Amino acid sequence: MKISQRAQNIQESPIRKLSALANAAKKRGTTVYHLNIGQPDIDTPPAFMERIINYKEKVLSYGPSDGLEALKVAMIHYFAYFKITLEVKNIVIATGGSEAIAFAFNAVADPGDEVIVSEPFYTNYSGYASQCGLTIVPVTAKAENGFHLPAIAEFEKKLTPRTRAVLICSPNNPTGTVYTPEELKAIGEFAREHDLFLIADEVYKEFTYDGKVHFSVLQLAGLEDRVIVVDSISKRYSACGARIGAVISRNEEVMKGITKFAQARLCPPTLEQVGAIGAYELPHDYFKEVMAEYQKRRDILYDILTSRREIVLQKPEGAFYIMAKLPIEDGETFARWLLNEFNDRNETVMIAPGEGFYSTPGKGKDEVRLAYVIEAAKLERAARLLLIALDKFCG
Amino acid sequence: MKISQRAQNIQESPIRKLSALANAAKKRGTTVYHLNIGQPDIDTPPAFMERIINYKEKVLSYGPSDGLEALKVAMIHYFAYFKITLEVKNIVIATGGSEAIAFAFNAVADPGDEVIVSEPFYTNYSGYASQCGLTIVPVTAKAENGFHLPAIAEFEKKLTPRTRAVLICSPNNPTGTVYTPEELKAIGEFAREHDLFLIADEVYKEFTYDGKVHFSVLQLAGLEDRVIVVDSISKRYSACGARIGAVISRNEEVMKGITKFAQARLCPPTLEQVGAIGAYELPHDYFKEVMAEYQKRRDILYDILTSRREIVLQKPEGAFYIMAKLPIEDGETFARWLLNEFNDRNETVMIAPGEGFYSTPGKGKDEVRLAYVIEAAKLERAARLLLIALDKFCG
Repeated sequence: MKISQRAQNIQESPIRKLSALANAAKKRGTTVYHLNIGQPDIDTPPAFMERIINYKEKVLSYGPSDGLEALKVAMIHYFAYFKITLEVKNIVIATGGSEAIAFAFNAVADPGDEVIVSEPFYTNYSGYASQCGLTIVPVTAKAENGFHLPAIAEFEKKLTPRTRAVLICSPNNPTGTVYTPEELKAIGEFAREHDLFLIADEVYKEFTYDGKVHFSVLQLAGLEDRVIVVDSISKRYSACGARIGAVISRNEEVMKGITKFAQARLCPPTLEQVGAIGAYELPHDYFKEVMAEYQKRRDILYDILTSRREIVLQKPEGAFYIMAKLPIEDGETFARWLLNEFNDRNETVMIAPGEGFYSTPGKGKDEVRLAYVIEAAKLERAARLLLIALDKFCG
Repeated sequence: MKISQRAQNIQESPIRKLSALANAAKKRGTTVYHLNIGQPDIDTPPAFMERIINYKEKVLSYGPSDGLEALKVAMIHYFAYFKITLEVKNIVIATGGSEAIAFAFNAVADPGDEVIVSEPFYTNYSGYASQCGLTIVPVTAKAENGFHLPAIAEFEKKLTPRTRAVLICSPNNPTGTVYTPEELKAIGEFAREHDLFLIADEVYKEFTYDGKVHFSVLQLAGLEDRVIVVDSISKRYSACGARIGAVISRNEEVMKGITKFAQARLCPPTLEQVGAIGAYELPHDYFKEVMAEYQKRRDILYDILTSRREIVLQKPEGAFYIMAKLPIEDGETFARWLLNEFNDRNETVMIAPGEGFYSTPGKGKDEVRLAYVIEAAKLERAARLLLIALDKFCG
């Protein structure tokens, strides 16, 4: 039986595909430090579970397709803190940021259409592009420029009659770059000039360091009609398993289309939405401590890696990832070797090969993405393990 | 800004699109009996919430993309009761039966491909077909034959080089028909002969009446490679809001493709999977009482409706829906009138217009789908309200 082309073509998640090797290493008794996946070890705020435990409905019934109104209201208050004014109709609750990406893609583009993305980019954009029949058109950001947005002229070179949108991510996964208001205004102007949608993945909104402040595309004046934000509680409240995200847009046609897509899958998970309300009602102070913790971790990882001149990297401004160029030929070979062959005192480290974050063939092969989501002492050991492994691998 | 064609084209859910009118009626103080949606009022088994309350992990983290192994194991035990042998690798946990449909479509068909479906059919198949770029090719089942599968010759007439699969649903939504082993063998043979996948939506598996037993396509010998089952706990354990479903297939290529799609959306909701384990571990006796309750409700609705000769319907053999032909011209006009204008002692009833369950234009306009998911006394009142309303509407 022949399966579909798209099922054959869709890329295996470069973040997840090495899982079998990691499991095998663990079965051999080896401790594996996970720098490969953005799974924070920060406790989910107890307010989340408390809300769920207090849920007293006897029937766990379908909710509204566009999400529980109480959750939207809690989000509106949250965004008001950033001086971003939203209405209930501007939000559709999605089953994770993942579904929010799919909704945004499906709303703006038809099969064969193109979306321009600055690479390296979050690898799951490719997965959804395959499923939705879109083509991702990459514009390569340079490590030397701190992976900031390439010049607008580079974006212009990629325009075709099928271009429907530009997709950006700030704070960026996998680079940690936080785009400045100026570069966001420029890319917004580019979208306006060429009649494109501007899709922005802002799920790392709270995670900015050294006093940097995140600027949202929702704050861009005159672009209300073009802007679509992909949002999620996964990182915000360390609740990745909840699968609660949202699409936010002031374009009514977009929201009408997305609501119909949302109806097709009936509703997002009810209990996890209830939990999210509890999290959103936390005072904003909650983030201060979390942000300080991540900044500390960033510094640990950055300092250890920069002790080696042959490792090339930029200090991340936000999110919790570092994209590092290593003195190796192929990140995937190295990642497999780390799990299959290497260990130091029966410990090893798991990393995400860089190639999967690029769509230009051949790019990123000597890069890896490291997530600094584990506690300081473990992170330090993991980073040192990486150096020991590199010495041995490059031996 | 022009949104995508698919966002414009996707049909609004005929089951959900009248919600705004129902809400308006409720705001006016009118009681609305919901016969429009398959939302059972049966309590979710307490075992579901108990498991979640006892979940002690401090971080609600990503689970495996293909679902928690403990849930798959619980499902394997459940299926063993029906003498269906499954392995962990035959199951991918989906975010609701809805996602399971999307996974199955994406795994077997590319944009432009066709899937033959017996109509009337569950309306969300159309929604996912739009999103996946597939064409649903209907074969019309007849009320006179109890909506059983049309003759194989009818299916053969619909074959084209783009046909990739046949999709069936048994026990059927919206007709309540339970296909016999013989007709399932015949449709399986048709799939084999024309090298098609056989996708079966079996989410109403437990709900069969008058001693009828559900026969699963997983029991068809020699078709292991072609059969894909769409499954869900929504109706099984009255947990529609949990969004926990599954795709089941013994075709390894299919499961590999679906696992990649599953990776793209990271994982299904963790807590609701934990709850599902608790439900699946209930003894099979749990269903006896539930089934008896639904059979009682079916009889109430059927008896009241058949008291009018001008209403044409078949006695449902399973699930919890009746597809009824009313002496009206347009089900949607009638459904709107029920919510906007009609009331009897300040009560009215909400129904699902039949047209949305057909893809052949014009078909089903004089039909409506009624779900018997509310308790006996309310159901009786709702059915009588419908008769009062019909008298008034037909004047």
